[in-house]
Amino acid sequence: IKTEDKLAIKEFLNHQNISDVADLVYEFPDYESSIIAGMSVHRAASVFKILEITTQKSIIQDLPPNTVASLLNELPADDRTDFLEELPSNAVRELIKLLDPQERRVTLSLLGYPENSIGRLMTPDYVYVYPDNTIEEVFATIRKYGKDSETINVIYVINKKGELLDDLRIHEFILNPPEKKVSELMDDRFIALHPEDDQETVSEVFKMNNRVALPVVSGSNKLLGIVTIDDILWVAEEEFTEDMQKMGGTAALEEPYIEIPLFRLYKKRIIWLIILFFGELITISAMQQFQDEIAKVVILATFIPLIISSGGNSGSQASTLIIQAMALGEVTIADWWRIMRREILSGFMLGITLCTLGVTIIYTWHLLSPQTFGLHYMSIGLTVGCSLLGIVMWGSLMGSMLPLLLKRLGADPAASSTPFVATLVDVTGLIIYFSVAYLFLSGSLL
Amino acid sequence: IKTEDKLAIKEFLNHQNISDVADLVYEFPDYESSIIAGMSVHRAASVFKILEITTQKSIIQDLPPNTVASLLNELPADDRTDFLEELPSNAVRELIKLLDPQERRVTLSLLGYPENSIGRLMTPDYVYVYPDNTIEEVFATIRKYGKDSETINVIYVINKKGELLDDLRIHEFILNPPEKKVSELMDDRFIALHPEDDQETVSEVFKMNNRVALPVVSGSNKLLGIVTIDDILWVAEEEFTEDMQKMGGTAALEEPYIEIPLFRLYKKRIIWLIILFFGELITISAMQQFQDEIAKVVILATFIPLIISSGGNSGSQASTLIIQAMALGEVTIADWWRIMRREILSGFMLGITLCTLGVTIIYTWHLLSPQTFGLHYMSIGLTVGCSLLGIVMWGSLMGSMLPLLLKRLGADPAASSTPFVATLVDVTGLIIYFSVAYLFLSGSLL
Repeated sequence: IKTEDKLAIKEFLNHQNISDVADLVYEFPDYESSIIAGMSVHRAASVFKILEITTQKSIIQDLPPNTVASLLNELPADDRTDFLEELPSNAVRELIKLLDPQERRVTLSLLGYPENSIGRLMTPDYVYVYPDNTIEEVFATIRKYGKDSETINVIYVINKKGELLDDLRIHEFILNPPEKKVSELMDDRFIALHPEDDQETVSEVFKMNNRVALPVVSGSNKLLGIVTIDDILWVAEEEFTEDMQKMGGTAALEEPYIEIPLFRLYKKRIIWLIILFFGELITISAMQQFQDEIAKVVILATFIPLIISSGGNSGSQASTLIIQAMALGEVTIADWWRIMRREILSGFMLGITLCTLGVTIIYTWHLLSPQTFGLHYMSIGLTVGCSLLGIVMWGSLMGSMLPLLLKRLGADPAASSTPFVATLVDVTGLIIYFSVAYLFLSGSLL
Repeated sequence: IKTEDKLAIKEFLNHQNISDVADLVYEFPDYESSIIAGMSVHRAASVFKILEITTQKSIIQDLPPNTVASLLNELPADDRTDFLEELPSNAVRELIKLLDPQERRVTLSLLGYPENSIGRLMTPDYVYVYPDNTIEEVFATIRKYGKDSETINVIYVINKKGELLDDLRIHEFILNPPEKKVSELMDDRFIALHPEDDQETVSEVFKMNNRVALPVVSGSNKLLGIVTIDDILWVAEEEFTEDMQKMGGTAALEEPYIEIPLFRLYKKRIIWLIILFFGELITISAMQQFQDEIAKVVILATFIPLIISSGGNSGSQASTLIIQAMALGEVTIADWWRIMRREILSGFMLGITLCTLGVTIIYTWHLLSPQTFGLHYMSIGLTVGCSLLGIVMWGSLMGSMLPLLLKRLGADPAASSTPFVATLVDVTGLIIYFSVAYLFLSGSLL
């Protein structure tokens, strides 16, 4: 029955349950590939994925490449990965080439490179040539394989072992006579990435080397694929967004704001709010220690928001600047001492300015309405001024050292977000404030 | 080793990657100009353009005029403009004199476009052809002009009037027979930028269209130049840094953190600290209105940092998310109503959570040490809880609407930084808190 006219068979197969077709495949191993080929591609994939690996392999080997391609593209990604995992690596490479760019990305990502690694951005669609090829032969290669290649702006020179020797821009080939050999163009200078490299670091490499594509090689310098600059633009943007969100005190959304379901948005935000809430709870304990002072000099309480927020603001400035400078590679942990010196000095300058401002305002205020701060306006002014100086310096120092400390501990520096630094400075700021108050006001008001 | 024979050094430098040479320049600041002078001018220009502006300046000052001239002439027009932009105007005048008439004209015209416009990124070095050229003629053109062209990955088709007709990738020419005409390859589909376009918007265009270069045309569709994707990577990074710094509550530094002179760093930071300081001054007035209440119920003061910071945190979350979504083009001002609804709902969910948490903690605290909050712990718990709910909702609303409002007013949404929103919410938060306290405590404690 199996050798009858094709149309009837197709009709027949498309009306069977997929499990029944699978049984047929097992029953007639000689016809297994024609059974798969005889079905609509969607149903073929459904059948294929429930078959045993050995049967799958023999079917793939028997089918013409274009049928394999559409079959693999149709296969759900996880099933495809399952299948590919069982094959030898050269077969995998061949099969991956058959996939749509979209499917390929998914497949590669599932194929075991760590998330956020270069391996996930790699495409195997590039043009490679050998050193003893002439330029004419190179063009023939480009004409043959260039159509499927993601970029032909850069052509890769490898040796017979598959090791990368050089990358040459298409310029070089066009600008030189066709009989010249590739080896004559080579300068043996190339920059290669490794699949385990972190995606974050790569935009820097692209920028500094003025390339539109970079090769990815294995530990033994075998060319695995290439990464093109347009993917890097996406990565850089994602990166920025994540950092920004973390610094604003939320977990990274990973979805557009307007599309993320409300409950997920809530979850991403509430986590940090709760952490910060518990942080701020300490301020309650801190303030309870000074309840007597507040009761005696109620006016002290009125300065609390001003003073703690000044500390928070200077802290968030410092931490933002350092996080940013670290992200750009301008500073590293090793610079901590230079940074500390800078921040102590800046903090002092900023603090002195706010101190002067605060004292001036309180004295002017006193002149305009003497009953507001009462007899001891001078001590109060000094208390506020010195607290501001202390807190701004402390905020700058904490804000700048925290990202470095987090980095040192292996955490993401961006987690030392503005709200986080502000909360930390709130607690310590209150202690500074009331200690200074005790110093200046004990004997007079306290 | 640096003073060894020149030839050996030159040989060595010409075999390094440009990013490595750049590192060398940074490592040996005393030899920076001799390193640049020691390379072939083409490679020297490639290194020079990726250096920091401060290093660029000192190199130019050290080099003899004729070397400066050839270096500047070799520099791609857009990078040269970038460099000149940073110099004082009399220095610019001197340097422009060193340029070839051709390069001088180009530079002057680029300097005429507004800062942060596409015009400044433009390079006039591209290859153009006419529709009636054959592919063979195209290759002849490339061979003739391609050497000076920044990219030959894309070739531009124009008519005799200089109007852009199409952009074709180099692929097309290589993959087709040499006797075919350009007009046969054209699909009349192209995306063009305008020189007045904002640089910010362009990375999106590059990303969505998978191009390595885009043409820039005048209002009458005349081809003026091209913009290449590597410049866009730089722009995106600068952009992001600026936004981040603004959101951290400083003016944009425009220089690396570690290199900016201390006093300039101070100036960039103190501006915002003073603005925020004056904002927080209002909290003093606000709290003075409630001085009697604080005097009667000192315990109220102890919750102030907790409550205002919760408002500030939810506000900074909301404003960060919206600023970010606007920067990515995910939301626009027109979405304000959708955003408002989302934020009222999210704010309510976040607020209810913190409210529950706050009430639970106060009640538990009371069970553990009954003297802390006294007899009226229930009213105090309710006051804190309801204030948290109100303030978190208010913070989310303010934080989300402020960036939209700023945008509407033509200002930069990123200026509604975390500290700014926090300060705004501090003032209003105190009023909410004491109003709620009045409601729940009058009759009992007040």
